Amino acid sequence: MIEIDISKAIIEQYCKRLTEHLNNDVVIVGAGPAGLAAGYYLAKAGCKATIVEKKLSIGGGIWGGAAGYNVVTFQDKDILDEIGVTAKKQGALYTADAIEFATALAYKAKKAGAEMFNLIEAEDIVLKDETVKGIVVNNSAARTIRLHVDPFCICAKYTIDATGHPAELAGMLKKRKPELFPKELQEYFMNVETSEAGVVERTGEVFPGLYVAGMAVCDVFNLPRMGPIFGGMLLSGKKAAEVIIEKLNE
Amino acid sequence: MIEIDISKAIIEQYCKRLTEHLNNDVVIVGAGPAGLAAGYYLAKAGCKATIVEKKLSIGGGIWGGAAGYNVVTFQDKDILDEIGVTAKKQGALYTADAIEFATALAYKAKKAGAEMFNLIEAEDIVLKDETVKGIVVNNSAARTIRLHVDPFCICAKYTIDATGHPAELAGMLKKRKPELFPKELQEYFMNVETSEAGVVERTGEVFPGLYVAGMAVCDVFNLPRMGPIFGGMLLSGKKAAEVIIEKLNE
Amino acid sequence: MIEIDISKAIIEQYCKRLTEHLNNDVVIVGAGPAGLAAGYYLAKAGCKATIVEKKLSIGGGIWGGAAGYNVVTFQDKDILDEIGVTAKKQGALYTADAIEFATALAYKAKKAGAEMFNLIEAEDIVLKDETVKGIVVNNSAARTIRLHVDPFCICAKYTIDATGHPAELAGMLKKRKPELFPKELQEYFMNVETSEAGVVERTGEVFPGLYVAGMAVCDVFNLPRMGPIFGGMLLSGKKAAEVIIEKLNE
Amino acid sequence: MIEIDISKAIIEQYCKRLTEHLNNDVVIVGAGPAGLAAGYYLAKAGCKATIVEKKLSIGGGIWGGAAGYNVVTFQDKDILDEIGVTAKKQGALYTADAIEFATALAYKAKKAGAEMFNLIEAEDIVLKDETVKGIVVNNSAARTIRLHVDPFCICAKYTIDATGHPAELAGMLKKRKPELFPKELQEYFMNVETSEAGVVERTGEVFPGLYVAGMAVCDVFNLPRMGPIFGGMLLSGKKAAEVIIEKLNE
Amino acid sequence: MIEIDISKAIIEQYCKRLTEHLNNDVVIVGAGPAGLAAGYYLAKAGCKATIVEKKLSIGGGIWGGAAGYNVVTFQDKDILDEIGVTAKKQGALYTADAIEFATALAYKAKKAGAEMFNLIEAEDIVLKDETVKGIVVNNSAARTIRLHVDPFCICAKYTIDATGHPAELAGMLKKRKPELFPKELQEYFMNVETSEAGVVERTGEVFPGLYVAGMAVCDVFNLPRMGPIFGGMLLSGKKAAEVIIEKLNE
Amino acid sequence: MIEIDISKAIIEQYCKRLTEHLNNDVVIVGAGPAGLAAGYYLAKAGCKATIVEKKLSIGGGIWGGAAGYNVVTFQDKDILDEIGVTAKKQGALYTADAIEFATALAYKAKKAGAEMFNLIEAEDIVLKDETVKGIVVNNSAARTIRLHVDPFCICAKYTIDATGHPAELAGMLKKRKPELFPKELQEYFMNVETSEAGVVERTGEVFPGLYVAGMAVCDVFNLPRMGPIFGGMLLSGKKAAEVIIEKLNE
Amino acid sequence: MIEIDISKAIIEQYCKRLTEHLNNDVVIVGAGPAGLAAGYYLAKAGCKATIVEKKLSIGGGIWGGAAGYNVVTFQDKDILDEIGVTAKKQGALYTADAIEFATALAYKAKKAGAEMFNLIEAEDIVLKDETVKGIVVNNSAARTIRLHVDPFCICAKYTIDATGHPAELAGMLKKRKPELFPKELQEYFMNVETSEAGVVERTGEVFPGLYVAGMAVCDVFNLPRMGPIFGGMLLSGKKAAEVIIEKLNE
Amino acid sequence: MIEIDISKAIIEQYCKRLTEHLNNDVVIVGAGPAGLAAGYYLAKAGCKATIVEKKLSIGGGIWGGAAGYNVVTFQDKDILDEIGVTAKKQGALYTADAIEFATALAYKAKKAGAEMFNLIEAEDIVLKDETVKGIVVNNSAARTIRLHVDPFCICAKYTIDATGHPAELAGMLKKRKPELFPKELQEYFMNVETSEAGVVERTGEVFPGLYVAGMAVCDVFNLPRMGPIFGGMLLSGKKAAEVIIEKLNE
Repeated sequence: MIEIDISKAIIEQYCKRLTEHLNNDVVIVGAGPAGLAAGYYLAKAGCKATIVEKKLSIGGGIWGGAAGYNVVTFQDKDILDEIGVTAKKQGALYTADAIEFATALAYKAKKAGAEMFNLIEAEDIVLKDETVKGIVVNNSAARTIRLHVDPFCICAKYTIDATGHPAELAGMLKKRKPELFPKELQEYFMNVETSEAGVVERTGEVFPGLYVAGMAVCDVFNLPRMGPIFGGMLLSGKKAAEVIIEKLNE
Repeated sequence: MIEIDISKAIIEQYCKRLTEHLNNDVVIVGAGPAGLAAGYYLAKAGCKATIVEKKLSIGGGIWGGAAGYNVVTFQDKDILDEIGVTAKKQGALYTADAIEFATALAYKAKKAGAEMFNLIEAEDIVLKDETVKGIVVNNSAARTIRLHVDPFCICAKYTIDATGHPAELAGMLKKRKPELFPKELQEYFMNVETSEAGVVERTGEVFPGLYVAGMAVCDVFNLPRMGPIFGGMLLSGKKAAEVIIEKLNE
Repeated sequence: MIEIDISKAIIEQYCKRLTEHLNNDVVIVGAGPAGLAAGYYLAKAGCKATIVEKKLSIGGGIWGGAAGYNVVTFQDKDILDEIGVTAKKQGALYTADAIEFATALAYKAKKAGAEMFNLIEAEDIVLKDETVKGIVVNNSAARTIRLHVDPFCICAKYTIDATGHPAELAGMLKKRKPELFPKELQEYFMNVETSEAGVVERTGEVFPGLYVAGMAVCDVFNLPRMGPIFGGMLLSGKKAAEVIIEKLNE
Repeated sequence: MIEIDISKAIIEQYCKRLTEHLNNDVVIVGAGPAGLAAGYYLAKAGCKATIVEKKLSIGGGIWGGAAGYNVVTFQDKDILDEIGVTAKKQGALYTADAIEFATALAYKAKKAGAEMFNLIEAEDIVLKDETVKGIVVNNSAARTIRLHVDPFCICAKYTIDATGHPAELAGMLKKRKPELFPKELQEYFMNVETSEAGVVERTGEVFPGLYVAGMAVCDVFNLPRMGPIFGGMLLSGKKAAEVIIEKLNE
Repeated sequence: MIEIDISKAIIEQYCKRLTEHLNNDVVIVGAGPAGLAAGYYLAKAGCKATIVEKKLSIGGGIWGGAAGYNVVTFQDKDILDEIGVTAKKQGALYTADAIEFATALAYKAKKAGAEMFNLIEAEDIVLKDETVKGIVVNNSAARTIRLHVDPFCICAKYTIDATGHPAELAGMLKKRKPELFPKELQEYFMNVETSEAGVVERTGEVFPGLYVAGMAVCDVFNLPRMGPIFGGMLLSGKKAAEVIIEKLNE
Repeated sequence: MIEIDISKAIIEQYCKRLTEHLNNDVVIVGAGPAGLAAGYYLAKAGCKATIVEKKLSIGGGIWGGAAGYNVVTFQDKDILDEIGVTAKKQGALYTADAIEFATALAYKAKKAGAEMFNLIEAEDIVLKDETVKGIVVNNSAARTIRLHVDPFCICAKYTIDATGHPAELAGMLKKRKPELFPKELQEYFMNVETSEAGVVERTGEVFPGLYVAGMAVCDVFNLPRMGPIFGGMLLSGKKAAEVIIEKLNE
Repeated sequence: MIEIDISKAIIEQYCKRLTEHLNNDVVIVGAGPAGLAAGYYLAKAGCKATIVEKKLSIGGGIWGGAAGYNVVTFQDKDILDEIGVTAKKQGALYTADAIEFATALAYKAKKAGAEMFNLIEAEDIVLKDETVKGIVVNNSAARTIRLHVDPFCICAKYTIDATGHPAELAGMLKKRKPELFPKELQEYFMNVETSEAGVVERTGEVFPGLYVAGMAVCDVFNLPRMGPIFGGMLLSGKKAAEVIIEKLNE
Repeated sequence: MIEIDISKAIIEQYCKRLTEHLNNDVVIVGAGPAGLAAGYYLAKAGCKATIVEKKLSIGGGIWGGAAGYNVVTFQDKDILDEIGVTAKKQGALYTADAIEFATALAYKAKKAGAEMFNLIEAEDIVLKDETVKGIVVNNSAARTIRLHVDPFCICAKYTIDATGHPAELAGMLKKRKPELFPKELQEYFMNVETSEAGVVERTGEVFPGLYVAGMAVCDVFNLPRMGPIFGGMLLSGKKAAEVIIEKLNE
């Protein structure tokens, strides 16, 4: 029966893709703008990159623009041009449709070769010789209803925390090693001018094997938050990719 | 301050887009596979088409594949080729990555010119002279927390109910005009062979001004459900678009 | 790394077992006493039988005895002896430890060769030529949090509704074919004497391809409920198995 | 169609008012008695003042009087006379109807020219050169259901925290700058005699650009709480307005 | 101690007002636009009118304008002028600030002499000789948490159901006397042109002693709904008042 | 250790009392005013009566008086005198403290010999030869969290449904035998004059073995509800007791 | 109409009792065993004592015995004899019916003259000259649903915290004056032998004007908890009463 | 009637078993892999061992394998052979069916003589002379809905905390004696190689009378977590049993 064929095709295809991606060059947690940009540039450079996302859909905080007005802004349009998003100039800013931006970025990352698993939640870190070696993951629906179920692992040479505001992986480190991040993991007050530059500058390795990109950088370094302007997120993801590509090529 | 510029750019842009799309050739409710396909083909043909979606993200039931195994299947790959989705042959079926399919379809619909508003929920129908003239909409977050807030309207020459299983607009009709749909609005048991053909065949107008596409067709006509095989959804959306284009060109 | 080996071993093993059991002689919905007994006797006779259970644990209503007093009663102890459960005589009744009974029954069913998948919920029926050909299933955690995710199918020559009081599969039939079961699907008032015999007697096929066993029988035929006395449940599961084995051997 | 005209009129009017009030002399967070009084006196003096309120309705803690007995008390009736509220003398106190007081105060503030946006929630502060320059706001319904959506900004020369007991803006400062407010932000035990004078006396600037008024003053300075006697709230709002008017006139 | 004086003043004042208003000329259920308008015109004419509202705040569906855009529209501005609300002409419509409208209407109703009790919910009807003689009420907070607590009564010569969409009192009648309202109590699809006139025309007595006003009229007579245009609500409330005043003067 | 002694004393005492009361002359469901009065008069007459109550505390709807004003009223004070409750005359009524009334009534019923089990919920009826022979009960906490746990039985020659407004046992009958009670089980509108007499008059057997008392009588016979006046409840409980005592003495 | 008479009688009676008890000799928070015993002995000695309880019913943790086995134990039966509760000797212990004990104790306290208000929750303390002068109270249902409503006050010469395990009033003190109770307010592990004596011994004043009784004593002094043996609770309540009576007589 | 016989048999049997096991050699909290293994080996050695489990079913985290893929892994198969579980070799690992493993382990522990009580939750510790003497327990359903109900005790010479990740008993100790466990009770990052050996090595007494086994060991000693590999859990439970058996035999 075709019903069996459909079921079999899907389960086998998924199982194959998942088992092939239990070991990676890079695993990225969070499929928002920074995580997708990192995945896009890593895959484009030929690295084996896997993105895990706990929600059902990909795109993180892009979809809603500001307060649900589904428009996003940028200070620069180079990457938008690269991924095929129409930008409109308005004063010193560029605006784009939030839905177009979210789908274009995810679509291009996937086409470049980044593998993505949604409904997968990182619940902990794999740590060997005080180096991050990947993430401990679980079915996010099972976690939401607090089922008592063990996790499995997705391993990688490098791990990127692109979980946005909560900086979830950095937080797991801080919980066991408070001395690593003595201050609370939180963004500073909003200040767009100083925020974008700072985020890109501080993107990088925060613990052996663990990189932060996007808003997670603000949390770790207490940088100002920035709101619905996404250029810095893309550049931060790109920079994380570049730094890691260099390491992989060493 | 740039913070003011960003806020102003987004609010004005959104307001402009929204007020420009209060009146349309076609308004489509639901941004799942059928709604997006309808929007894509309508926009491609030059019609003014607006899609409203109550969720934050676009894509409906595509993202999770089957039971969260994020792979989807098709019996044919023509439309996949058209929208740039990689299909793998497996027996008589084609498989594709669910995330790639969701983002490619929404991205291409947007690029073709279909306007999309997420977080907007259709709560009723505008009816004049016993003809559907558009939809009554509200902020879906406000509705979720049951705020007592009035709606506004998005009007159109033709309205497509692409809300999937609940067939929401058809249901609103049935609530006030039970004689229109004497049977319960529900899909029949699963049977993939007979389902796909039936859905496409029955796609069309069910009440003056109101069209159904996608799984909503199954609900209205008690056709078998089909599961994670999406060819019928795309063809149904395409057919709804074609029928309406023809009417608009009359 | 061993973490990868563990993850891979589990996912591959599960995927293999699941894809091997997409097509069965019999699929049983519900791993309570009747479903487990049916699985045990079917497997013992060499049939390919798969049990799906939406909860995390197996055993259904056995664990809590009466009102949490974890003791269960029987009118006869033959099957208890067969599965290795200690029965104590008390007047005309036998008592047994509820936990011992639940674990022994599930363990023996598994050892006999019945395959079991927990956290899998039947959400619909596969129907071809007006004959039940299996079930439409989904991840029960995803369903609990109402994720919009498509299902897959587990098919079989015969399907047993052992879902207990709600008689879930029979209910799905009734929803689309109300004339099949004109009365409400519900048990009658408690009356132990008449209940046990009735349940076993009425166990059997209620629609082409669909069998009911256990308390689902009471719901379908409005028989009296019986409370924490489990002999009838075991005999009903056994009878369903026997009737189907005969058919399979035809 | 008139439905389109209504929708368009409302959206455009709102968008115009909102974009015109992204930049203000003063932004007030919280439309309870102190915030409304501040808005009333600022607007009366010709300042551009905007009040944001996260709830659907305006009035804060006034409506319920004490424990739902919808009567409020005052030690003095000058401001009541000014805004047209009937006061009854009872011993040394004046009583008034809570609903009359809430609606009169909000109505008069609006008539004086204070702009008000309900369903808008302050989620953070805009900070430049260590000076508060406005607030980061979002759709409060979207925040209530924890939608992942970016905010926008409403800026001002001066910001008033009139959020009542939680002293929300002061709390945001304390979260990043614990040394600013070394003690917990909380009111002291109830003591009406000493409370009213203290609240008015301590109303004022607590950080460059940020003023506190009303019960938020009690929280910041650990002053006694006071219960359903509202004279102090009005005087505190009035004083905050006066101090800022003086600054704006410098 | 002043704390005791405040507590005593409030409780006694409330108790006095409540016991004085247990018997009325008219009791109005619901303090939205129609209920407040009815109360305003009844009180202005010297009738003893009491409005009960289950929410903490007064104003019903006015506050949020359309979808939270806090602007409301009118086809005519006479009553706005009468209650002191600024109206702006936009095409054939008038717009007004939703907050200004809500507070002005409630304030003026109160000033005219209408008594209001918030947090009081009508849970049933007092019926004598098949005539409505008042309402059975309870503490709405206690009802929300389903406390098992008996109600009390607020009686009147005439009762107005101004509960809006649910038409709560009419619904209580229908529950015990289905033959009174054979059709489901629900509004028809949106159609502003025909709606406003219909609402006013059908405002009136629907059962001995019980009047409907505002959107409850739409529910009872299945008239079209109308959205954020409030002229009809005010006229409906006014008409209900006028009809009852006439009866009281007979 | 004394901790063991305490645990053992309590469990053994409870187990003894419970097993001794699995078989009774009368089982009463619901420990509100009617159930407690019935238990009091039955026990006083020497009958073996057991009251089950699903809540943790005894007293039903007495505690809150009207809307939380903890005072109750009576038209007559004979039973109050009998159980030692102080009544104050106010016009034609007597008032009493709600807490005093609730505790006195339960205390006197217990002292008279009625056995009470709280946290026990009736979930069904035991029916033999079309006669009610007792109730099917469960742990109410386990039911509240929907644990899948079987019940046990408490049997009796006669069963009283004193569950108040829902008339729970009558409802269980109606669910399986709709023809027994063709109308919906619900009270009529409030009308104190006609209600009290009606309740007492209609108290009695409604099905072989099943009696109704208190507000359940109103539901079964669609009599008017009455609010916080409790004389009828006591008389109804007393009458149910008297009718059954007579039968037991036959 | 009698409905008006009933409503009026109840509201006036309650209002009178409440306003008469806004000022007391003693206010007791919590109507569990210790609070009721304190109220009983205070009232018996002629003091004006008011007990407030946030739940609908009186009795606190008595009703459920141990784990719902509704039996309680005592080491001594003097007070049981005094309040008319039947005690059974079992080894060194006495057992009693939990329901009988709860109702007898509350009934006798009320009869002795203690006034009780249920559904009233203490949310803060009135403090003058660093002495507790009473409590700040609110409607507990309104608090449960987090309505923004101001409180009122119930004042007294002495206040008893009989809130049981949370020691709510002591906790309010600790929140503002952490130095008062440097350790966490919590009971120590269970140890019945040492617990009972300790509770009684430490019962008394813990801050000017504030006394603790019952399990709150264990929390304040980190004494062992004791479980379902209630002698210590009664003696603690009695001691608190005696100490305060002495002070009042000074 | 047989309904009474069934009820009586169950309640008496349970009461007997429970009261006979209020005093034990060992009480084990948590019926996951470590607790069941400890119970199995203790009972096999003739010790009186009781396991309490707060959930309805036994087995803890075994059922779901990894992320719901119901397969578990082991590094060794000796104990699997001993309890009759089929192991498949895959590389250096053994895999087994999670359901088979859960049921076999519980069944064999019960058959060996370990007594089990489900739906019983440990809420505290009995402590005498600074030695753990057992646990304070309650009905877990009553606790889940926060009923105010006292507990009872299950005592033992030795107590094992096998509560898994939360290390519940150790946490109760830490709450009152923070100096005992100065670090937070939490597992370290995942590292399977070092975890298994560490868990077994550190299994043992952590406070007079209290032993930890299984994942609770990781929490207490901050050892790495390990995921769905269960050999260490079994060995830890076995070691705890062996150490205690030795002590009991001293």
